[in-house]
Amino acid sequence: MSQFSISIGPRVRQSPYFEATVAAGVTSFSVYNHMYMPISFGSPEAEYDRLINGVVMWDVAAQRQVEIVGSDAGDLVDLLSARDLSNVSIGQAKYMPMCDHQGRLINDPLVLRVDEDRWWVSIADGDMLQWCRAIAFERGFRSSVEEPDVSPMAVQGPLAEDVVAALLGDGVRSIRFFNYMPYEIDGIPLWVGRAGWSKQGGFEIYLCDHTRGTDLWRLVAGAGEPFGIIPAAPNYIERVESALLSFRADNEFDTDPFELGLGRWVDLDGRDFIGRDALAERKAAGPRRRLVGVVINGEPITGNDQPWPVWAQGHEIGTVRAAAFSPRLGQNIGMALIDSERADPDNLVEIATDEGRRGATTCSLPFI
Amino acid sequence: MSQFSISIGPRVRQSPYFEATVAAGVTSFSVYNHMYMPISFGSPEAEYDRLINGVVMWDVAAQRQVEIVGSDAGDLVDLLSARDLSNVSIGQAKYMPMCDHQGRLINDPLVLRVDEDRWWVSIADGDMLQWCRAIAFERGFRSSVEEPDVSPMAVQGPLAEDVVAALLGDGVRSIRFFNYMPYEIDGIPLWVGRAGWSKQGGFEIYLCDHTRGTDLWRLVAGAGEPFGIIPAAPNYIERVESALLSFRADNEFDTDPFELGLGRWVDLDGRDFIGRDALAERKAAGPRRRLVGVVINGEPITGNDQPWPVWAQGHEIGTVRAAAFSPRLGQNIGMALIDSERADPDNLVEIATDEGRRGATTCSLPFI
Repeated sequence: MSQFSISIGPRVRQSPYFEATVAAGVTSFSVYNHMYMPISFGSPEAEYDRLINGVVMWDVAAQRQVEIVGSDAGDLVDLLSARDLSNVSIGQAKYMPMCDHQGRLINDPLVLRVDEDRWWVSIADGDMLQWCRAIAFERGFRSSVEEPDVSPMAVQGPLAEDVVAALLGDGVRSIRFFNYMPYEIDGIPLWVGRAGWSKQGGFEIYLCDHTRGTDLWRLVAGAGEPFGIIPAAPNYIERVESALLSFRADNEFDTDPFELGLGRWVDLDGRDFIGRDALAERKAAGPRRRLVGVVINGEPITGNDQPWPVWAQGHEIGTVRAAAFSPRLGQNIGMALIDSERADPDNLVEIATDEGRRGATTCSLPFI
Repeated sequence: MSQFSISIGPRVRQSPYFEATVAAGVTSFSVYNHMYMPISFGSPEAEYDRLINGVVMWDVAAQRQVEIVGSDAGDLVDLLSARDLSNVSIGQAKYMPMCDHQGRLINDPLVLRVDEDRWWVSIADGDMLQWCRAIAFERGFRSSVEEPDVSPMAVQGPLAEDVVAALLGDGVRSIRFFNYMPYEIDGIPLWVGRAGWSKQGGFEIYLCDHTRGTDLWRLVAGAGEPFGIIPAAPNYIERVESALLSFRADNEFDTDPFELGLGRWVDLDGRDFIGRDALAERKAAGPRRRLVGVVINGEPITGNDQPWPVWAQGHEIGTVRAAAFSPRLGQNIGMALIDSERADPDNLVEIATDEGRRGATTCSLPFI
């Protein structure tokens, strides 16, 4: 919690769950995709504990969608993706690194094939609606590219399946990872999939009628009550433990997928896509930096407000992008983007934290 | 001031003036172009009063720049602009509406020609670096498109010229409106121009070395002390009085320049640019909506958190985008985007404010 208030005004949108989260006691927001996104409900320890040991519900409507519809929609989606998406089934979602013409990562959405010629790109923080339109128009695609009325909520944690089954029936238990299905409850249209930005298991519920946000929030809270559900938000500590990429926190303007460990999702062969030639060059040259783990010595840290410089043998070799004290590990951990030649495990480095220099040791990711 | 805190973390950048604004007592932030932007220092009345009657200093580093450099830079800038920019002198800035291929306004920067083949596009909230790169690469331009190390600060108000002259010498008094010149003070490279997002007169100081933000802040505060300068932020009330467009607050996803009263800056004849054909069609059809003023009856309002629906004769005809109580006018005023057939002055409408329905009357803009 910072000591600063967030200004609430009409330039930034409110999520369809905004009023429900205020009623549920949200204390802290950030802005994500020009939308207020809850960050905490005032109990960081409880929010972490329930995610690991119980179940939490998150307003992640700021994970906006780009809908691509038309007979050439599949070709456009594939052109926009560093990963080959020519074999995605209807109802299936895939992680989709997107690069610009120079091979820089510009977003890392989950893309869902909703129907034969209809795709939803579930974006990280960035104006990908405009990007997709620019490419579509410049290349003469006929598909429409719009923001649909789709606002995700996440139910995460080991008890998430029980909560969603209590809400929508036991059929949800057979939904496989990264698969989505249409549902309806109390007249509210939904798409429900096994996904979410944690490694604790759970579901994303895509609300497809923004006027029903409060209703859906209450239904989920009600179904979750017997399981001890609490409102929370994407968890900073758990995501560092699990090494889930946070686009824009973990990368810089010019970071490529290879540097971020996403190389296995870059399919260079036998296809054309935005950034292909630049990525082929970058792959051949080898990554200049790499995203690795660091274990930081000393007393528990409170986390980094901005990237922390990393030093080795008198040289700055990169930055810690995200750091936290892990209660499960009893250690300070972080994800650092550093020069490749220093990125192997067990290298000793120094980190310029807000509380002074600390020794640290590199390691592989994830931590847990 | 909302009751919610803003989360401070590494996904959102800190301005080069961040530490200086914290030391100066900033109380409230928003996020703009993925950067924390101060909104208030805790004294809204004083911040408004000094802007109108004295001088204020603003951290507007979140007004990020897109630098376009190369022998075809001028052609690229012109292609990206709805306004003809073929005759901009070096050191001159122009308001530059940018549209997508379908004629929607996607940003409204000030563009500055820094040198023969170097331009800085000073953007409103939106990922225009990516947009400009997409068009440049798709069209085969050879110019580079990067974010330069440029972070604006604004000095605004009737005493702003005296402050900037005290800082940089009386030469600044001869700088004409929307003209910029290079300066240096204490080894800090600057570009200084007569501009800023208020109608009270003043200057923008572009800091060209992000490591010197605190130094520059202190120098400006020191030069301004005899003139009673205070730290403040772009002023919500003054901008509504002056009808300065706030991109993303005043428009919707599909709003075009004609609807926003920017038609005089759309040059359709004898040139090609992104969105030209769609804009020609939209111009011929006439604007579906128009941005107009509304004077709202009743007790002073505290402003709108989100757009307020506007009603006339039982139909919703649009929304109030921004509303405030004007101390200078002693009236509640607002900017509303409503159906063209209801947009003439002196129409009676109803507005669904947070405090219930209020009667209101349409009027022309600006208010002052």
